Amino acid sequence: MARVLRLGRAELRVLDLDKSVDYYTNVIGLQETGRIGESVFLKAWDEYDHHSLILTKSNSAGLAHLAFKVQSIDDLAYYEKKIEEFGCTTTRVTNQTRLAEGEAVRFILPTGHVCELYHEIELLGTAVGTKNPHPWPLGTKGIAPHRLDHLLLTGDDLKTVTRFFVDVLGFGQSEKVVTEGEEELVGSFLFTTNTAHDIAFVKGPDAKLHHAAFGVDSLHDVFKAADLLSMYEVPFDVTPTRHGISRGQTIYFFDPSGNRNEAFAGGYMAFADMPTITWDASKIGTGIFYHRRELSESFQKALT
Amino acid sequence: MARVLRLGRAELRVLDLDKSVDYYTNVIGLQETGRIGESVFLKAWDEYDHHSLILTKSNSAGLAHLAFKVQSIDDLAYYEKKIEEFGCTTTRVTNQTRLAEGEAVRFILPTGHVCELYHEIELLGTAVGTKNPHPWPLGTKGIAPHRLDHLLLTGDDLKTVTRFFVDVLGFGQSEKVVTEGEEELVGSFLFTTNTAHDIAFVKGPDAKLHHAAFGVDSLHDVFKAADLLSMYEVPFDVTPTRHGISRGQTIYFFDPSGNRNEAFAGGYMAFADMPTITWDASKIGTGIFYHRRELSESFQKALT
Amino acid sequence: MARVLRLGRAELRVLDLDKSVDYYTNVIGLQETGRIGESVFLKAWDEYDHHSLILTKSNSAGLAHLAFKVQSIDDLAYYEKKIEEFGCTTTRVTNQTRLAEGEAVRFILPTGHVCELYHEIELLGTAVGTKNPHPWPLGTKGIAPHRLDHLLLTGDDLKTVTRFFVDVLGFGQSEKVVTEGEEELVGSFLFTTNTAHDIAFVKGPDAKLHHAAFGVDSLHDVFKAADLLSMYEVPFDVTPTRHGISRGQTIYFFDPSGNRNEAFAGGYMAFADMPTITWDASKIGTGIFYHRRELSESFQKALT
Amino acid sequence: MARVLRLGRAELRVLDLDKSVDYYTNVIGLQETGRIGESVFLKAWDEYDHHSLILTKSNSAGLAHLAFKVQSIDDLAYYEKKIEEFGCTTTRVTNQTRLAEGEAVRFILPTGHVCELYHEIELLGTAVGTKNPHPWPLGTKGIAPHRLDHLLLTGDDLKTVTRFFVDVLGFGQSEKVVTEGEEELVGSFLFTTNTAHDIAFVKGPDAKLHHAAFGVDSLHDVFKAADLLSMYEVPFDVTPTRHGISRGQTIYFFDPSGNRNEAFAGGYMAFADMPTITWDASKIGTGIFYHRRELSESFQKALT
Repeated sequence: MARVLRLGRAELRVLDLDKSVDYYTNVIGLQETGRIGESVFLKAWDEYDHHSLILTKSNSAGLAHLAFKVQSIDDLAYYEKKIEEFGCTTTRVTNQTRLAEGEAVRFILPTGHVCELYHEIELLGTAVGTKNPHPWPLGTKGIAPHRLDHLLLTGDDLKTVTRFFVDVLGFGQSEKVVTEGEEELVGSFLFTTNTAHDIAFVKGPDAKLHHAAFGVDSLHDVFKAADLLSMYEVPFDVTPTRHGISRGQTIYFFDPSGNRNEAFAGGYMAFADMPTITWDASKIGTGIFYHRRELSESFQKALT
Repeated sequence: MARVLRLGRAELRVLDLDKSVDYYTNVIGLQETGRIGESVFLKAWDEYDHHSLILTKSNSAGLAHLAFKVQSIDDLAYYEKKIEEFGCTTTRVTNQTRLAEGEAVRFILPTGHVCELYHEIELLGTAVGTKNPHPWPLGTKGIAPHRLDHLLLTGDDLKTVTRFFVDVLGFGQSEKVVTEGEEELVGSFLFTTNTAHDIAFVKGPDAKLHHAAFGVDSLHDVFKAADLLSMYEVPFDVTPTRHGISRGQTIYFFDPSGNRNEAFAGGYMAFADMPTITWDASKIGTGIFYHRRELSESFQKALT
Repeated sequence: MARVLRLGRAELRVLDLDKSVDYYTNVIGLQETGRIGESVFLKAWDEYDHHSLILTKSNSAGLAHLAFKVQSIDDLAYYEKKIEEFGCTTTRVTNQTRLAEGEAVRFILPTGHVCELYHEIELLGTAVGTKNPHPWPLGTKGIAPHRLDHLLLTGDDLKTVTRFFVDVLGFGQSEKVVTEGEEELVGSFLFTTNTAHDIAFVKGPDAKLHHAAFGVDSLHDVFKAADLLSMYEVPFDVTPTRHGISRGQTIYFFDPSGNRNEAFAGGYMAFADMPTITWDASKIGTGIFYHRRELSESFQKALT
Repeated sequence: MARVLRLGRAELRVLDLDKSVDYYTNVIGLQETGRIGESVFLKAWDEYDHHSLILTKSNSAGLAHLAFKVQSIDDLAYYEKKIEEFGCTTTRVTNQTRLAEGEAVRFILPTGHVCELYHEIELLGTAVGTKNPHPWPLGTKGIAPHRLDHLLLTGDDLKTVTRFFVDVLGFGQSEKVVTEGEEELVGSFLFTTNTAHDIAFVKGPDAKLHHAAFGVDSLHDVFKAADLLSMYEVPFDVTPTRHGISRGQTIYFFDPSGNRNEAFAGGYMAFADMPTITWDASKIGTGIFYHRRELSESFQKALT
């Protein structure tokens, strides 16, 4: 029973490694778990695996790759075959190419993003342990999210990438944004967990990152995160609000390289048997920003 | 790829049908979706399916049956075979035996509870619809939970029932409570969604219900639910607190027949690759009631 | 011991009385308590007095008058004398000039706003009563604030109006915004209760209203209010955020006549012995919108 | 215009000074601001004055004295006269008898508690300052309340002590608990700020402390405080709930000497013109614990 467990990691390209590590450890509040070459590995306090975020020094910001963890090592071959059948070329990334990771299957999404599937990764454990644990750890810094939550990417052909995630990887489509008469798909929200989205796409240039989202517990924590960003003088894109799509509570802001981050809480439980929720493209403002009811210019730009 | 989607429904035995319907519609805030004989069918506003709760008139309170929804109609035969191989006898419940339901596979859990698997059920849709939806509906009553969340049952042989859920139904075990030296399993928390538990068992008499839990959004909503219960003079078992196990926020109270209900929010995301969290039986007080740090007598009794 | 108890009422000019009453009763969630001529009287559920808001039909929106309730009937003469000594002319408004009100002392603030002091007003009581009360009432509509909280007005000479409130009415100044070298006072926040402001002034045209604020309980309720505004398609000025000044949580939006409203929660406790908090005019963006850290154009306009 | 500003300080007797300072600085999260002899002085981060809590080594726990801050130095003589007229003997506590304090008027309340009025105390300022301040400081420890909020004391003659606070000190009575036919006053809640109580009395032995309450911001912070108490293994008296009286959200727990503490949030705004809310003694369970609706034995004992 092959199954994609979750978005396991994202590798972000950053312009200045020191500044970026400072930001992701002190403001976001992740823990550094290792370094190799010009890459730094980080995890959130409530994640078990060795890392969910990799920062790699580069000349431009953006997403170097994203990777989904699958339920068993055998799933690699299972999905490899399905991906090839879909028409994507796959390669194997060997064990320990990056720190603490096992083998991975690598391929290019129809939207041009580099994607991997993997199962093996070193287990470090959460900050509260697995023996009579406390509900949260003392001494965290900054926003201290529970986990990497989801990515929003841009691409040109959203129908094909949606078909890839649904048919090949077994995702569900929780929500979609369509132009009049459903002629064009301009937003597609896809899930493999029971959250409203593990990955999503909006119409735009191929191979670009719109944002990487970290999961926090509640509206209160989204608001506390917003306060912290002002204390640390981090530039906001979007101050606290609710999404129509997903119903979640949110803020958007930028890392030192210009990669957009989100702190996200809430949202409904998605199930494989749910009908896809449909938004008219003319209502996308309300779908994205339920209160403001219109897209800001900045939110539509600033892709990395 | 067979998969159990969720706890789809619970059928509770109630002593007085009118009083019970009044309570579950006005205080809990479910919607009545149908009646047949001495059974009333209800759904929460955020559920798509025709019902998740059935109230059936009886001479004693308790759980008549629980049922899990599977991903496809073919999964019935798949699991039927596995259940039989495990050593449980299965029968088929025919289409429309109850209102709006398709066929089901029926069997007895190792703890004596009547359990079903099903796929088909009439789709009614949520209160906010699937077209440019608002995040929540106006005009709900009472606690207005999003959904039936989980059940806690009692039974004698928790090792076997855990093995059944893990090996046969593909659940994960998020947490367990064990006596010294892990000699005996006295609590077992099992999940098929990404919540900390979809069903759980504690050591006790076979075939009994400890509680049925409804899912609300946040601590704020748990607290509002508690206020409402006082306004409606519903008897409390446990006032607002946090669980150590699951980390969720909770209150417990009783329906007019003495069936224990819970309003539950929060909790971590569970994944199939998480290690099982272990609680020493000597710490079960903290595991269940993180603040009080000891079990109340009432919580250990009042099984139906 | 004369003392100003609170901002007791505001009279808003509205363009369409029916639309305005519909908005203030169903969206804001006030209760209509009387009508006389082209004026409608309203109170919040947690206020004891007959009304705190009066809507009066007019050809232009804005503030017709504001009024503070004083502790005893003798305080009218006490303050009357002090106001005259300050250099403002006072008149007496006779009993029952408006519905349910006793006599008032009327005068013009140095910023040109019509202001009254009063003690007598009919007591209606809160929605939960004074005998073994529940903490909140069932069946409220809309935002359902606890009370009228404060007003923000504009004016040219903020030093004089501040001196008036401090020296004549015994208010404290909790916060001020000053240009470089404290040359000019461009914002002044004044309190007579223990909240961060009961009335405030920002530099601008005389006799204008910036907003009328209603008090809700918590960030959660501010956010719920924001959701409701989207459901009712009320135009927002500012979506949920925190103030630097007062530390409160806030949203701004417009009534059908264009009068700006605020739903406000939180803020520190102000005491008569607190030093005045000072904001540099160059930091006023952060002072007003702690997250966005800059004033929007719309927030600086739309005075009525 | 004499006026009592607030409960300015409480001096608690503690059995072990080191343990107590550790608890009040690390678990409660106050800041130590000075030591003299066997007394340690502490303030909350959001208080301006030098201290609000004094811990003094003693052979028994309890309240050594409580003190109210008055608006001006002249108020000392004003109240001194009124107190003497009421029939209480006053003495003057000279400047610097304790650290950082000016002169005080000392007297015994009708319930036997030692009480002082003062105006002068050294100003230290809050942790966020008064120049373009952030809304809250980074780096606080433990519960980190904003301020000392109120005291609940026990005494025999509540009518007389109420009359003292209302007639002599100008307090209002927000709520009262009375036996059938209002024959006896068994609970009295009194305010001088706009909070529901600055000091309260319940029927019991004279000169005893029921609890000292610290003010936090919200239900969320009460709950976070409860989590912290479990992490630090502090004994609870009452886990999170709502008060009927005051409507506030609350937890009760014990300091290392057995003095009961409360973390308190919310509650309505009290005004001098509010009618007194009345609770029947038979409803006191609901009045104190709105969810549980009955008093626990422990809550009625454990006076210090």
